[in-house]
Amino acid sequence: MTTAELNKMGERARRAAYELQTMKQQDKEIELLKCAEYLSIYKEEILAANAEDIKRATEAGMHPGMIDRLRLDDARIEAMADGMRQVVKLKDPCGEVMEEFTRPNGLKIRKVRVPIGVIGIIYESRPNVTADAFALTFKSGNAVILKGGSDAISSNIAIVNLMRKSLMSSGLNPDFVQLIEDTDRKVTQAFMKLNKYVDVLIPRGGAGLIKSVVEKSTIPVIETGTGNCHIYVDKYADLDKAVPIIVNAKTQRIGVCNACESLVVHKEVARLLMPRLAELLKEFQVEIRGDEYACDILPDAVPATKDDWGKEYLDYIVSLKTVGSVEEAVEHINKYNTKHSEAIITEDKTTAQYFMDRVDAACVYVNASTRFTDGFEFGFGAEIGISTQKLHARGPMGLKELTSYKYQIYGTGQIRT
Amino acid sequence: MTTAELNKMGERARRAAYELQTMKQQDKEIELLKCAEYLSIYKEEILAANAEDIKRATEAGMHPGMIDRLRLDDARIEAMADGMRQVVKLKDPCGEVMEEFTRPNGLKIRKVRVPIGVIGIIYESRPNVTADAFALTFKSGNAVILKGGSDAISSNIAIVNLMRKSLMSSGLNPDFVQLIEDTDRKVTQAFMKLNKYVDVLIPRGGAGLIKSVVEKSTIPVIETGTGNCHIYVDKYADLDKAVPIIVNAKTQRIGVCNACESLVVHKEVARLLMPRLAELLKEFQVEIRGDEYACDILPDAVPATKDDWGKEYLDYIVSLKTVGSVEEAVEHINKYNTKHSEAIITEDKTTAQYFMDRVDAACVYVNASTRFTDGFEFGFGAEIGISTQKLHARGPMGLKELTSYKYQIYGTGQIRT
Repeated sequence: MTTAELNKMGERARRAAYELQTMKQQDKEIELLKCAEYLSIYKEEILAANAEDIKRATEAGMHPGMIDRLRLDDARIEAMADGMRQVVKLKDPCGEVMEEFTRPNGLKIRKVRVPIGVIGIIYESRPNVTADAFALTFKSGNAVILKGGSDAISSNIAIVNLMRKSLMSSGLNPDFVQLIEDTDRKVTQAFMKLNKYVDVLIPRGGAGLIKSVVEKSTIPVIETGTGNCHIYVDKYADLDKAVPIIVNAKTQRIGVCNACESLVVHKEVARLLMPRLAELLKEFQVEIRGDEYACDILPDAVPATKDDWGKEYLDYIVSLKTVGSVEEAVEHINKYNTKHSEAIITEDKTTAQYFMDRVDAACVYVNASTRFTDGFEFGFGAEIGISTQKLHARGPMGLKELTSYKYQIYGTGQIRT
Repeated sequence: MTTAELNKMGERARRAAYELQTMKQQDKEIELLKCAEYLSIYKEEILAANAEDIKRATEAGMHPGMIDRLRLDDARIEAMADGMRQVVKLKDPCGEVMEEFTRPNGLKIRKVRVPIGVIGIIYESRPNVTADAFALTFKSGNAVILKGGSDAISSNIAIVNLMRKSLMSSGLNPDFVQLIEDTDRKVTQAFMKLNKYVDVLIPRGGAGLIKSVVEKSTIPVIETGTGNCHIYVDKYADLDKAVPIIVNAKTQRIGVCNACESLVVHKEVARLLMPRLAELLKEFQVEIRGDEYACDILPDAVPATKDDWGKEYLDYIVSLKTVGSVEEAVEHINKYNTKHSEAIITEDKTTAQYFMDRVDAACVYVNASTRFTDGFEFGFGAEIGISTQKLHARGPMGLKELTSYKYQIYGTGQIRT
């Protein structure tokens, strides 16, 4: 794909975005339901394309776990269609008057929520992200340019072609969704500099992908995903709450960004908590990497190295740091966290609020599992990702986070003096 | 300045930001008033430093207009101090509970407004920006690292040192404000990659500076400033409103981003409007660069070239494009504008709303001058810049736009199943 072709794609996306920004909510909903139907009706096309991806992956010797992530079947395609139908039910945030005020000179100023325009999404994960990302961007009035991973390229092409087919048969602009089919790295790099046509770039995937996009993109990026999440067990903790929360946050799903990766424990409760906790974590074969104080108490614990504190394991491993105060806990967490989700277990309200006000993260919890940082769990209905930066959106990003605003100002001839 | 020193500076800023985020509104106000006093009391120090800048600039043969921008005197220092006192009066946006809801599982979620953290500002303009930027970031609870232009370096050092002196004498952390004194380009480039310590970078200055920061920074940037603003005179326009609005937007101050740079005129009113307008613009020696149709009507007009439509003149020049419909006007504007401020002059409400809903800009006006796009005019009290991007903030950025949010979640032992 040449730069000229990429520019043309951007131009088409921009034009599509201008059409989409005034499309009625009901019309968007009808179209999304139709797209969901298309996924069901034409699933054989998707399955055939997916078989090509699986064949290539198998021949290349891909890990069976990875191949499973790539694989689509009837149930997974139905789940994709259902996800789309769920998005239909969400409230369209656009058009909302966020503020309205009149100036002394009579100018009436309205701050109105509008779509962002053109969103670029670079992802490497499962092909269902393709349908999911289209549904969310379309419902929020944005045109989207997708750049999926090369592993799933055939599946992604099939899914996007179906969406475009549905749009065209409804007399709509198919460029509401476009896919960059060329998986050459150079094309991706050029895409990341398409500032003229793309308003925001959202990377979805592992830490490597996200770092690369943040470093190379000249388009504004929303950084998502990496989570080195801590749970701090305070000296005023109710250990009957602490234990199940930690076990849940560490073991319920290890490969996700809101899983707990590190424990911070007040020394006054360490002797009581840790053996009890270690026993339960042992059932899940969780390796504990502790500091000296922790290793003294837990003979099975592995001594932590300096690298452990900043690590997102995404595995059955947890680091364990002991502290003498909540102040020390906050300092440790702010030094090593990725600003994602952090929790304190305490029955003391003042300590809880101290922690919540000072820990620098998108989501700070008292007496609950960090696993709740999620668009569905927050009631947003769906999410495009979890932002770990502070600009624009923080935490789970639903439809509202895919919008911007504009000021509409009504005058009667005012000039500035 | 070495990279290690720059990192140390970032680390100090981050630490300062953590202190500042919980500082009481009243304490911030008292300190800001003291800083304003310091500007007055120690103005001789600033004037002496400024004299060095002026001397260097004069020796280097700087244009007298530029030297004037650089120069400080008693009145300008008093204006700086007054600006600071104005910021004291603004409402501190931090701590506001933006949303609050309880989930079916009992989790109570509060979305709370918090400072962004560490803000970097790269600017090249007058030394008063130094005091101004400190006041706004401090009041909104953010630590700031300033990187001013080399022309004003002595003045900037003097001003920042005064602020730090005031902070220290109050027993506060002087690192709430830091200045990068090394004006080497390499230092600036390293600063733009200080992601670990700087949450957002705001460039303030000309188009060249902004472009350079957008291209080189890996820190999230808020793009500000460039404005190729249009006024569209519709066929239903009241010409008695159109004429003074255009004259105001074009001539009241030519060097600012919200000045009008281009006129788009419906052909049905062109013959009536243009001669009348041209006569008035002539008084200000405004050169009109028109399309063929316009030049036919206005014998004095210069034929526009293709380059004219996208140009921010910041001069006594205006381009003039004639169109046959509001649709054509919108298309032209969306093609060439910088998403800053755009106006329509019309008495027809449907046409006005059509324009406002479809023109892609931070501020869209009906029957008013584009010159109102300004923090003071919007009632924000002050502004750090005017955002022309769609992420985070759009249009005039006041204190609120220098904040982020976090979710504080109150549980009673909830785990995810």
